Amino acid sequence: MLKGIPPIISPELMKVMMEMGHGDEIVLADGNYPAASHSNRIINGHGHGVADFLRAILEFFPLDTYVTFPVMLMNPVQGDEKNPVIWQTYEDIIKKTSDFPVQIEKIERMDFYERSKAAYAIIATSERAQYANLILKKGVL
Amino acid sequence: MLKGIPPIISPELMKVMMEMGHGDEIVLADGNYPAASHSNRIINGHGHGVADFLRAILEFFPLDTYVTFPVMLMNPVQGDEKNPVIWQTYEDIIKKTSDFPVQIEKIERMDFYERSKAAYAIIATSERAQYANLILKKGVL
Amino acid sequence: MLKGIPPIISPELMKVMMEMGHGDEIVLADGNYPAASHSNRIINGHGHGVADFLRAILEFFPLDTYVTFPVMLMNPVQGDEKNPVIWQTYEDIIKKTSDFPVQIEKIERMDFYERSKAAYAIIATSERAQYANLILKKGVL
Amino acid sequence: MLKGIPPIISPELMKVMMEMGHGDEIVLADGNYPAASHSNRIINGHGHGVADFLRAILEFFPLDTYVTFPVMLMNPVQGDEKNPVIWQTYEDIIKKTSDFPVQIEKIERMDFYERSKAAYAIIATSERAQYANLILKKGVL
Amino acid sequence: MLKGIPPIISPELMKVMMEMGHGDEIVLADGNYPAASHSNRIINGHGHGVADFLRAILEFFPLDTYVTFPVMLMNPVQGDEKNPVIWQTYEDIIKKTSDFPVQIEKIERMDFYERSKAAYAIIATSERAQYANLILKKGVL
Amino acid sequence: MLKGIPPIISPELMKVMMEMGHGDEIVLADGNYPAASHSNRIINGHGHGVADFLRAILEFFPLDTYVTFPVMLMNPVQGDEKNPVIWQTYEDIIKKTSDFPVQIEKIERMDFYERSKAAYAIIATSERAQYANLILKKGVL
Amino acid sequence: MLKGIPPIISPELMKVMMEMGHGDEIVLADGNYPAASHSNRIINGHGHGVADFLRAILEFFPLDTYVTFPVMLMNPVQGDEKNPVIWQTYEDIIKKTSDFPVQIEKIERMDFYERSKAAYAIIATSERAQYANLILKKGVL
Amino acid sequence: MLKGIPPIISPELMKVMMEMGHGDEIVLADGNYPAASHSNRIINGHGHGVADFLRAILEFFPLDTYVTFPVMLMNPVQGDEKNPVIWQTYEDIIKKTSDFPVQIEKIERMDFYERSKAAYAIIATSERAQYANLILKKGVL
Amino acid sequence: MLKGIPPIISPELMKVMMEMGHGDEIVLADGNYPAASHSNRIINGHGHGVADFLRAILEFFPLDTYVTFPVMLMNPVQGDEKNPVIWQTYEDIIKKTSDFPVQIEKIERMDFYERSKAAYAIIATSERAQYANLILKKGVL
Amino acid sequence: MLKGIPPIISPELMKVMMEMGHGDEIVLADGNYPAASHSNRIINGHGHGVADFLRAILEFFPLDTYVTFPVMLMNPVQGDEKNPVIWQTYEDIIKKTSDFPVQIEKIERMDFYERSKAAYAIIATSERAQYANLILKKGVL
Repeated sequence: MLKGIPPIISPELMKVMMEMGHGDEIVLADGNYPAASHSNRIINGHGHGVADFLRAILEFFPLDTYVTFPVMLMNPVQGDEKNPVIWQTYEDIIKKTSDFPVQIEKIERMDFYERSKAAYAIIATSERAQYANLILKKGVL
Repeated sequence: MLKGIPPIISPELMKVMMEMGHGDEIVLADGNYPAASHSNRIINGHGHGVADFLRAILEFFPLDTYVTFPVMLMNPVQGDEKNPVIWQTYEDIIKKTSDFPVQIEKIERMDFYERSKAAYAIIATSERAQYANLILKKGVL
Repeated sequence: MLKGIPPIISPELMKVMMEMGHGDEIVLADGNYPAASHSNRIINGHGHGVADFLRAILEFFPLDTYVTFPVMLMNPVQGDEKNPVIWQTYEDIIKKTSDFPVQIEKIERMDFYERSKAAYAIIATSERAQYANLILKKGVL
Repeated sequence: MLKGIPPIISPELMKVMMEMGHGDEIVLADGNYPAASHSNRIINGHGHGVADFLRAILEFFPLDTYVTFPVMLMNPVQGDEKNPVIWQTYEDIIKKTSDFPVQIEKIERMDFYERSKAAYAIIATSERAQYANLILKKGVL
Repeated sequence: MLKGIPPIISPELMKVMMEMGHGDEIVLADGNYPAASHSNRIINGHGHGVADFLRAILEFFPLDTYVTFPVMLMNPVQGDEKNPVIWQTYEDIIKKTSDFPVQIEKIERMDFYERSKAAYAIIATSERAQYANLILKKGVL
Repeated sequence: MLKGIPPIISPELMKVMMEMGHGDEIVLADGNYPAASHSNRIINGHGHGVADFLRAILEFFPLDTYVTFPVMLMNPVQGDEKNPVIWQTYEDIIKKTSDFPVQIEKIERMDFYERSKAAYAIIATSERAQYANLILKKGVL
Repeated sequence: MLKGIPPIISPELMKVMMEMGHGDEIVLADGNYPAASHSNRIINGHGHGVADFLRAILEFFPLDTYVTFPVMLMNPVQGDEKNPVIWQTYEDIIKKTSDFPVQIEKIERMDFYERSKAAYAIIATSERAQYANLILKKGVL
Repeated sequence: MLKGIPPIISPELMKVMMEMGHGDEIVLADGNYPAASHSNRIINGHGHGVADFLRAILEFFPLDTYVTFPVMLMNPVQGDEKNPVIWQTYEDIIKKTSDFPVQIEKIERMDFYERSKAAYAIIATSERAQYANLILKKGVL
Repeated sequence: MLKGIPPIISPELMKVMMEMGHGDEIVLADGNYPAASHSNRIINGHGHGVADFLRAILEFFPLDTYVTFPVMLMNPVQGDEKNPVIWQTYEDIIKKTSDFPVQIEKIERMDFYERSKAAYAIIATSERAQYANLILKKGVL
Repeated sequence: MLKGIPPIISPELMKVMMEMGHGDEIVLADGNYPAASHSNRIINGHGHGVADFLRAILEFFPLDTYVTFPVMLMNPVQGDEKNPVIWQTYEDIIKKTSDFPVQIEKIERMDFYERSKAAYAIIATSERAQYANLILKKGVL
């Protein structure tokens, strides 16, 4: 353990966040997400929800101000709840930690998958809420 | 996710528990434990306490009935609290999940370290309680 | 061995099933299947039939409810028996373990091969029945 | 599959048996055996018993005629059954396949472990019978 | 050495033949063949001719009955002998070991090369006869 | 770059500091130190002095309060300056960042080497001052 | 340390510069650059600025005289300062060390990225100035 | 050292020449050639010229008689000397060692590069003469 | 294939012989020898006898003139033939290829094994003659 | 190629020399030296003599002034020439490049071997002179 580093951030996760640069993306994936088939750089987040990671990550991680949407969510497919409750939690966390108004994009499942396969890393959580997957795009300091 | 597997158990941890055999030991290490210098087989348990893992593990993991003490704790060094509160939590969890009375050994810090270096794997948690490290010895089914 | 895990499920197979996510596929291949040339992630199932694995896997593995056909079989090429007896066995096992009616797709040999090469893993069994190969698509919990 | 090779023998097992030379030993381990902590060369035999492997192996594998005991069993520790039933099965299989009378040694658990760690490979079966572990010493052709 | 396995078959070759499935191909390459630039899975057959391997392999290896030509030769380029003597030797060996009439295809050098690059493995022999390269396609048992 | 992480701390160094546990040691080695022959875990610190790393590291790194000397220096061999000027710089940095009085041990060159070989990692700096090597022992949080 | 090699040049960087040949390119990336997602050959330059590396590298590294522009900068995107101050520093360093007049090209961000992904290596510095990224193309001696 | 093997031929180079087959190509690259970015199979020839390698290699290496040009040179780009002196040296060496008249092709720099990237190996020499790069195509014995 | 290199010598064997230096030893092992458990550097010589390798190797390999016995054989254990016929073959081959009188040592089986484990490489042949194992010690040129 | 780096120094050799620190040793081995069996870090110097490397290395490499003998030679065994001519060449090179009088130790063959096995790296040259092996101990700058 180090002073000032939240326990949920493992050495691998911290290294990944530091290695990422302007425009690189990280996926916070729920418990059912095909993380291991999308990436070779998987952060074990089993037993945690996505919001816990989001809170800890945004203490360190600058969001990209060069794009309109530095945060992305997956659009529910037809038949599923359109406005998942957890999205509100995410927006609250982001609002609290960000010093500029952050706009969030909702993208189709297959587009989300393509993006996820090109992401720098994926955190495999055990989040049970539906459509709780999240992509963060890194900005500059 | 699979039916009947608790979220805190990652694919790596399940594989490790299945690979272990009679007499093999696993360490549940607190947040300050030198896990990475003791073993090359580290399970990332960052953000969790030891008790959460203990509860999930004992659903699957038989303790060794061929030895007097299938569970080991680290004896506090002089000056530290002699009966850490968390030990009671451990005993309760073990009593609930075990079908035979389990005796727990307290061993010196350096003996614990030697044993830990020979263990099959170490789970690196973020447990903050003192003397919360635990060794489990696997039994037969 | 762990409590509640059937013996036929090796540590590697359990790890693979846990790593898989929504939409990932696993192939249960018969003894003549070109498993090693289709995948780098091969589970050694030598000496076993496909049905034994199917039974054990479906205790843990949720099938995908977002697609019409979460299970796939290989269509016999002309000249071979059209309704392999083993298919009935598979349907019985699936019916018993599934809590929703599962539809099974029959696809052409070459389509099956393409899919198999993109699958997350292949279990190489010693199944001797013809057209006994099977693909399972993972669902959500 | 190849003509004349029993299904239970995987490509890895066949390779291992062929690589072994005069005096090299292979362990047929039961389901509770600490195989993975004894060896880096593990043959996945999950779901099978030891006797199935023994039968298939002895079709190919010559036992060592330069030592008194080319086969070894583990002596039951005090309190366990002294003459495990499965030993009779083993003797029958060995008698049928061997063209010379084979003597079997019973060695202490810890001696068995030392020998196992130095063995060329270990087959990790799911054998449930007690004291079903077996060591075979390879001879010459 | 194992009972019933011809000496020319190394542990690696046996493993490769066992791993291959229906439709996979193996190349028996002559001494001048660019084996190492075509494949990462090379069987060292230095000092041997192709016919010696062919004889030993066909004891175990079923040829594919689902295709017209389960065996392929390389067509001589213009200026070279059209009916290499060694082809007759190959046909005799195949006739003796096969329980069905095997047809052999002659393909152009560049087509042979493409096929060789997609093959499961290549045996690099020291065969000196011209146009002695051979591809075998595996069948089912 | 991340918020609050000093630029001199690379992703590898941060990961190493987080992986270290109670009692693990890290070496801050000068430009002439045989770092690569002492360890396989080398942090590239070329172009920097030791003091720059010391300052950045102690923002995060707790020193061990369970031992008398959580910091170690190398004793000058006969003929070299006995009280290297840089030691005063180190003491000032440590005093500023530590919330308890830290005692520093001076150990013989060969003892320092033995300790360095057992350390968790070595930072290879380009420090030019003599006897500027430093060992830090990690404490608990 | 070696005579005549500046401390900022690590063993890895020197090796990389020596391995590069005519036309190969190296990227000197600022602290926000996505270095790790562009290349597998990353030189750790944390804590340093780009100019320090530029000065040291040009002592050894010949620029390409076969192309018009052996040095490349990234064009500011709209809204950012058009003539970053640091560019003047770069030009001064290059003028001092080069024995021929060097022309510098400014290329678009995405073109710069494509080029960076094909470069031989990337030095990941902690440079804070904007648009401080630089590509050098190696010439002949 | 072995009897009859010239000292300049390292174990790696001999292995590479033996592994090559009919039609495979090897590049003898000068000191400025981008060898490491063209190939993963680099033979260290530092401190030697190309002619020294050519002489030693042709003692063992048959040139391809199935193509018009088994040897290739790189055409000088405009402005450079059209008939590099070293080409005459090469022709003399080839004439002396070859038992048939060898024709040499001159190809454009970019074509040479494409060919070099597909070659079996590259020898990185320190040759200082311009346009001294050479490709040899292997023949049959 | 290369001019002047006998077909039985594979690229790996030639590389190994070239890498060996004064005093290094190579084992020519018969078909029953535990080659793979003695060494990680195994040359596949399946299908060949030891004498074929001996003849080819001694064309290149200088025997050590600084020791009394540069060649070693394994002494038959009691009950086996004392003067294996193949030894005469070996002596004839050595006499023909050596320019000085070579003395051969016979050492005990266990001493032979110790030496074999320290040898630079082992050639695993299919030699069927008893006590046909041979160690060669390399000399200088 | 880089400005000021002699051609005989390969990227690997330069990296090794830079990685070495105070007290680390490098072996310059003749053509018959068992380099590959003494070390895993071998620099290919085939085709060169030791003196060529010595001259190039000492341009960069400081010798150790903390020991009496920073250079070591191997003592001839009885029967060989006592004062090899090449030793004079070495002394001349060292005298020219060193700014302090360097003393050279002669050590027994077996002591030299022990030291060589612990050295940081070995350069495998093709030097033909007897007793031409040399060890250099690195000093400080």
